[in-house]
Amino acid sequence: MKSFRDPVHNLIAFEDSDRFVIDLINTAEFQRLRRIRQLGMGNIAYPGAEHSRFVHSLGVAHMMRRVLDASADWQDGRHNGALRAEVRAYRNLAIAAALLHDIGHGPFSHALEGVTSERHELWTTAIIRSPMTEVHQVLEGYESGFAEQVAQIVEKRFEPSRAVVKLLSSQLDTDRIDYLLRDALMTGAGYGTFDVEWLIHVMRIGEVAGEPEVGLDLHKGQSIAEDYIMCRYYMYLHVYFHKTTRAAEVMVEKLLQRARMLGAYLPGFSGLNALLEGSLDTAASARTAEYLELDDAVLWTAIHLWSRNPDDVLRDFAQRLLNRRVFRGVDVKDGPHRLRLMEALEHKARLHGVPPAFYVVHDTAASHAYQDAYVSPSGWDDGDMAAATAEGIDRRGSEQIYLFDERGRPYELSEQSFIVKAVRDRKVKIERVLYPEDWLRDGTSE
Amino acid sequence: MKSFRDPVHNLIAFEDSDRFVIDLINTAEFQRLRRIRQLGMGNIAYPGAEHSRFVHSLGVAHMMRRVLDASADWQDGRHNGALRAEVRAYRNLAIAAALLHDIGHGPFSHALEGVTSERHELWTTAIIRSPMTEVHQVLEGYESGFAEQVAQIVEKRFEPSRAVVKLLSSQLDTDRIDYLLRDALMTGAGYGTFDVEWLIHVMRIGEVAGEPEVGLDLHKGQSIAEDYIMCRYYMYLHVYFHKTTRAAEVMVEKLLQRARMLGAYLPGFSGLNALLEGSLDTAASARTAEYLELDDAVLWTAIHLWSRNPDDVLRDFAQRLLNRRVFRGVDVKDGPHRLRLMEALEHKARLHGVPPAFYVVHDTAASHAYQDAYVSPSGWDDGDMAAATAEGIDRRGSEQIYLFDERGRPYELSEQSFIVKAVRDRKVKIERVLYPEDWLRDGTSE
Amino acid sequence: MKSFRDPVHNLIAFEDSDRFVIDLINTAEFQRLRRIRQLGMGNIAYPGAEHSRFVHSLGVAHMMRRVLDASADWQDGRHNGALRAEVRAYRNLAIAAALLHDIGHGPFSHALEGVTSERHELWTTAIIRSPMTEVHQVLEGYESGFAEQVAQIVEKRFEPSRAVVKLLSSQLDTDRIDYLLRDALMTGAGYGTFDVEWLIHVMRIGEVAGEPEVGLDLHKGQSIAEDYIMCRYYMYLHVYFHKTTRAAEVMVEKLLQRARMLGAYLPGFSGLNALLEGSLDTAASARTAEYLELDDAVLWTAIHLWSRNPDDVLRDFAQRLLNRRVFRGVDVKDGPHRLRLMEALEHKARLHGVPPAFYVVHDTAASHAYQDAYVSPSGWDDGDMAAATAEGIDRRGSEQIYLFDERGRPYELSEQSFIVKAVRDRKVKIERVLYPEDWLRDGTSE
Amino acid sequence: MKSFRDPVHNLIAFEDSDRFVIDLINTAEFQRLRRIRQLGMGNIAYPGAEHSRFVHSLGVAHMMRRVLDASADWQDGRHNGALRAEVRAYRNLAIAAALLHDIGHGPFSHALEGVTSERHELWTTAIIRSPMTEVHQVLEGYESGFAEQVAQIVEKRFEPSRAVVKLLSSQLDTDRIDYLLRDALMTGAGYGTFDVEWLIHVMRIGEVAGEPEVGLDLHKGQSIAEDYIMCRYYMYLHVYFHKTTRAAEVMVEKLLQRARMLGAYLPGFSGLNALLEGSLDTAASARTAEYLELDDAVLWTAIHLWSRNPDDVLRDFAQRLLNRRVFRGVDVKDGPHRLRLMEALEHKARLHGVPPAFYVVHDTAASHAYQDAYVSPSGWDDGDMAAATAEGIDRRGSEQIYLFDERGRPYELSEQSFIVKAVRDRKVKIERVLYPEDWLRDGTSE
Repeated sequence: MKSFRDPVHNLIAFEDSDRFVIDLINTAEFQRLRRIRQLGMGNIAYPGAEHSRFVHSLGVAHMMRRVLDASADWQDGRHNGALRAEVRAYRNLAIAAALLHDIGHGPFSHALEGVTSERHELWTTAIIRSPMTEVHQVLEGYESGFAEQVAQIVEKRFEPSRAVVKLLSSQLDTDRIDYLLRDALMTGAGYGTFDVEWLIHVMRIGEVAGEPEVGLDLHKGQSIAEDYIMCRYYMYLHVYFHKTTRAAEVMVEKLLQRARMLGAYLPGFSGLNALLEGSLDTAASARTAEYLELDDAVLWTAIHLWSRNPDDVLRDFAQRLLNRRVFRGVDVKDGPHRLRLMEALEHKARLHGVPPAFYVVHDTAASHAYQDAYVSPSGWDDGDMAAATAEGIDRRGSEQIYLFDERGRPYELSEQSFIVKAVRDRKVKIERVLYPEDWLRDGTSE
Repeated sequence: MKSFRDPVHNLIAFEDSDRFVIDLINTAEFQRLRRIRQLGMGNIAYPGAEHSRFVHSLGVAHMMRRVLDASADWQDGRHNGALRAEVRAYRNLAIAAALLHDIGHGPFSHALEGVTSERHELWTTAIIRSPMTEVHQVLEGYESGFAEQVAQIVEKRFEPSRAVVKLLSSQLDTDRIDYLLRDALMTGAGYGTFDVEWLIHVMRIGEVAGEPEVGLDLHKGQSIAEDYIMCRYYMYLHVYFHKTTRAAEVMVEKLLQRARMLGAYLPGFSGLNALLEGSLDTAASARTAEYLELDDAVLWTAIHLWSRNPDDVLRDFAQRLLNRRVFRGVDVKDGPHRLRLMEALEHKARLHGVPPAFYVVHDTAASHAYQDAYVSPSGWDDGDMAAATAEGIDRRGSEQIYLFDERGRPYELSEQSFIVKAVRDRKVKIERVLYPEDWLRDGTSE
Repeated sequence: MKSFRDPVHNLIAFEDSDRFVIDLINTAEFQRLRRIRQLGMGNIAYPGAEHSRFVHSLGVAHMMRRVLDASADWQDGRHNGALRAEVRAYRNLAIAAALLHDIGHGPFSHALEGVTSERHELWTTAIIRSPMTEVHQVLEGYESGFAEQVAQIVEKRFEPSRAVVKLLSSQLDTDRIDYLLRDALMTGAGYGTFDVEWLIHVMRIGEVAGEPEVGLDLHKGQSIAEDYIMCRYYMYLHVYFHKTTRAAEVMVEKLLQRARMLGAYLPGFSGLNALLEGSLDTAASARTAEYLELDDAVLWTAIHLWSRNPDDVLRDFAQRLLNRRVFRGVDVKDGPHRLRLMEALEHKARLHGVPPAFYVVHDTAASHAYQDAYVSPSGWDDGDMAAATAEGIDRRGSEQIYLFDERGRPYELSEQSFIVKAVRDRKVKIERVLYPEDWLRDGTSE
Repeated sequence: MKSFRDPVHNLIAFEDSDRFVIDLINTAEFQRLRRIRQLGMGNIAYPGAEHSRFVHSLGVAHMMRRVLDASADWQDGRHNGALRAEVRAYRNLAIAAALLHDIGHGPFSHALEGVTSERHELWTTAIIRSPMTEVHQVLEGYESGFAEQVAQIVEKRFEPSRAVVKLLSSQLDTDRIDYLLRDALMTGAGYGTFDVEWLIHVMRIGEVAGEPEVGLDLHKGQSIAEDYIMCRYYMYLHVYFHKTTRAAEVMVEKLLQRARMLGAYLPGFSGLNALLEGSLDTAASARTAEYLELDDAVLWTAIHLWSRNPDDVLRDFAQRLLNRRVFRGVDVKDGPHRLRLMEALEHKARLHGVPPAFYVVHDTAASHAYQDAYVSPSGWDDGDMAAATAEGIDRRGSEQIYLFDERGRPYELSEQSFIVKAVRDRKVKIERVLYPEDWLRDGTSE
């Protein structure tokens, strides 16, 4: 048995029969996640939020194991027996997928993807499938074909068990449960918490229109479901969309754009340059190794180096990020007022002799606490507004939480709960204009 | 008022009258601490322990503020009135010193110091005194001479108030209180915690042989003092001296030694090279800026780069650290058996064609839970065995915790407590031999 | 200084300058509260909820002290300075009123009041005003006229400071803060908690239409206000209106009605009999001592005795309460269906030869989570002074929570928060029919 | 499935297959435990410590279930496999015994036993064995002979599985684990806690000299064992032997002695009188029903009644207990000084015209944190079955905690741990003289 201590779950233990989990943890690719912070620039607003994707991934595997173990006690409705047996039959696959679901994350994922248009989810499955990676080798060593199956679960395309897919990626999944609890503890934000023991206790599985769905007990689960939705709402409001964090993320994106424009590079790290140039993509699986060189340390070192770059913009952005001279965010309503504000600020930028495209930024993002955009049937998680939505993909199936009665009949949560109903169609939405606060303090203001 | 949320203290708030604290936090030098982990390689054994010296330093300033605010209620013994007034008179200095006490820490401090022999404490005071740093400028902008006074508190040489010195550096100081609580929470280690509310409630100040000492109430404070000592004992036993963490730290030290031997460098970061070469020291205060370039990110990037170095040893150590292929530690008694074991392993190293001096390491360290070596009158904190001890400096004054009765009479804790007496002279001591575990598994074993 | 340890607040300390608080705690009338459980029969559903009004009252005094101490830092709007000074000027009165606000509570208050129509709030002020009580004597010994002022604060009639009244009795008062936190912890219910440190941190005081109101900071307080309202909502839903608890309370009421009908008595406790007969009321202040004989122990002992009474109904109810054979509650919609169900059950009661008026009960209660009023079956309001309502006093002012901006302008919470708006006019409402569950199991069912 | 929420364990759930547990909880005898506080007069010093033996007993059954479930993962030493199978084979018996182990407790057990010399443990087994009790009927209904087996486990005489006996009654048993955690939480004492998740994780079973013993893993369990021992030490020091609590308990004992002398009675409660007179003992099993009438409520009501008794002593003690006018305790060394102090106080008592035997009390008690036995003044051992000792059974085996290595070899804890060694032979011992504090304040002092 291998056990880890954890500030969130206290004890995370994998038994000897889960030996492959330990082997996966010991791979180079999984160890890389130690060097990637879960919340990117989030610690700029919440100094305690310094946790890595490594510890989050351990937590998701642990939650998956606990949910699967608890499923033995799930009450039986009409169809549940089969689903219960099914999720237990795929136990090892489910735990492996839970552990590896974030393995393709790069440093400051959102910012990097904003520049490269290359989604981290594609890297995740590329890494799992690439015969060159240790992760792939451990999976295949465990059982031939295992890597492909794990990749399909991550992609939400695993047809043998839709239920297992849902346990990892749905409105009530083990990924979200861990990150909400962990982000709430580490930020110290004080709002976002819920009773995970009760949540697991009242979890159920059922079928909705022929599709398996993870849900909760109708009679015992409604309040905890509300608590969970409210937790998500507050985490978006106070943490994920925090003004300073968003500003810092936008600044990283602008910095990387500038680096690409200038061809600025970090000696010895061809992967970063290739990625910025667009010559490194998931199709080029032979180049996965270059992608895997990237982590927060490498990116921060590039920022260090660029803080001495001759280009005024690159240097200024690098220095601002290192020293937390973050742009100010002003909440505005979208529309003419915003346009006028931006015009005035762009004028000021020109007076300062700096390019307005870099120094005056329109920042907009939105999420629903209930139908949140981390999930869509086509499988892509983007943190803010999923491309999937834009592409009109039907997301209804995964976007609801169901309560099941003792006979397995589903009741959609927002139909039962006036609180969730109130939250349901309300976006946590931001409309901001970002610009350097120091402009307000210096003598050049007109 | 500026407030931070924190997983340890929940709410850390500085009032408008403490504006200089906010200004100090916003300096480049203090922001650098975000990129230096409090426990160095500690997260290799405890994956949650990823917190930075930044958040620890905020915590120490917060504890200092709380203790000073509580001091208004300290019961009055014979001499206490004056000391109480004194510590309150130096409130701002004490908070500034608490905030800045770790500002000279480099990445993986112990490993780096093992190579360069340059102590981070000297860098702390060099940074505070250097007219080039923002920290210095903020302090002097607040009040002329402030920087020098803060430096003296950190050096434990501030004669106007020995009591303020003790609040920052003694056996029962605000630094230790924060790091024990924080390291215990973040590791999830489960042993090391104590009730900080009660500790503050029963804190007292008094005089012992003419020297002010921070202590606890005789009647209400003994059990919490024992709890605190036991917490420290367990943190050494399970966290600070953890086999895997120590092995990783030793491996960083060996890696840096090898890099120095080879003149391996990180392009663009002259500070690292200068430090390794020995041309960068605190006497050369003009070169403080180079030192301040260093952080965990830079060091990890060097390790990345070196993982492709042609030198077999440097490359191997770098790869091992990146991928957590850490040496195995075997506890041994010092003496002939240890020597024989090392000889056998060194022989094996030569068979493998690798230099034994790098691959077979004698790791020894010790600390007392009661008289722990983080403190000595000459002021240097080294985490393990203070040089101070070796130099025979008299450390008795700061190395004891006193309980004060209602008349201010001191009682030394280990005289009152059979538990502390049992712990007092017992070192948490390690004697280990470290070597690559994979030797045991491969086919070359004889 | 006198300190108590407490599972909710950890440390409750009163300084020597608050000596009168200790003296009040040591009175016979306050010590009686140790023998009265806060949640009456609540532990029948939540076995941990065994806490007394004694420890709750300590908690309210502690919260009042903390809020008053924090008020020194309240930001200044236009009018706030004066209010801030005002609440601090009445510090001792406010703490005394907080401590004593429940001193008139009897055992199983709602049930007892349902029978006697005598409100516990009137007993509270009668006890404070009666020259015979130790409480009165301590208050007057502290300062002449103090008792009358404390009584007026409890009655919400203290004109010199409406703000102090609001700190004890309003939608966001120290009483509610303590009981929500305490009931949540002790029940282990898992939903009802909120971050009290942040709540105190963002508390403000302001004026609304000339009336002082305790509120929260507009920018920092909305989410915590929502959390607090949701906590209240869940506590009503899951704890205060719990089916089993309500059924037990209704059974106590029926038992007392029966005892009154029969003239059943408890030898030696004239107060209980006088109260049931209606000859003991608050107007007869000379008989306060008889009222003060009553506590949970006395009532349970009467129930014990009655469990051997020859009257079948009294004996049966007593045995059921002792042994937790509680009536079953069935949720029904009010209307014809409920009437039909009750008729059928009443028919069954007659077949069993028992009086339907005792064995088939219509239980209805309601509360708003926002505009709450803990309505017992006979209609009294627990949280507030329902008397005020009955007497036509306009309570709108106290029934809302305000957010204040930096200039002291008020914004009503439900206008700002779509969540509170959703909860605002929604009652937590119960409509139940209660009857003995064993009827379903025995052989007599037709 | 039946679930309880609990402040200590959060969720206590018994599955449908454990239906007999629910049936046992619903018996009249088990419900009586709701009216008996776990810590007797403990809430006089720690106002939050108002929890009942009911909720503690639920907690012990829950811990037993958890430990038995975890035993499936216990590592296998030489002999462990059989023991592991054995404890699992007796699962239901073990849980029933855990639930019922305190069912014979009376109100203020130690004080009552001090007067009657009738041990609560004997009542426990009498209740389990008596064919008249619901508890007995449920057990026998489950399986014939079950009641006798449960009684034997409680008596530590169950030969088919010594291991099950040890899980309920040994130095590291489920009873102690629950009460230490619960008493620590409820008192808020702040010292006594330990990580129960880790404790269960590292629990092992093995054999010592042919006797099964519950112990801990040699490598992972030593620190948690120390924590547990220290917790127990602090709970004795600060809670169980608290000066005010002990004084109140002694006063209850004196009050009952006086009531017996006077033949004072409580109308309607023949059991109390019979018990005080000595005519009610466990041999008279037909009179178990009378014993079961007793609970805290009945005793407090007697105290109420006696507070108006014409006897000065009985009345004074009753009033003091109701109103918390508790004797003062002065710690003294035993010997001539104590005798002189008592003589002086006895002289003063005579001057006050009160019997010294009631007003000047020598209070002495002792416990070992390691080999503990909660010794009341009259000498009974609470944690264990003191009967065993009295009857000369060799208890050495149960009085030690063992660490087992991977081969099942035992290592006695105090041989491994210098901390436990320090605590081992040190009693937490009190020597006090108790007398009315008000004597010091009134004018009669010479």
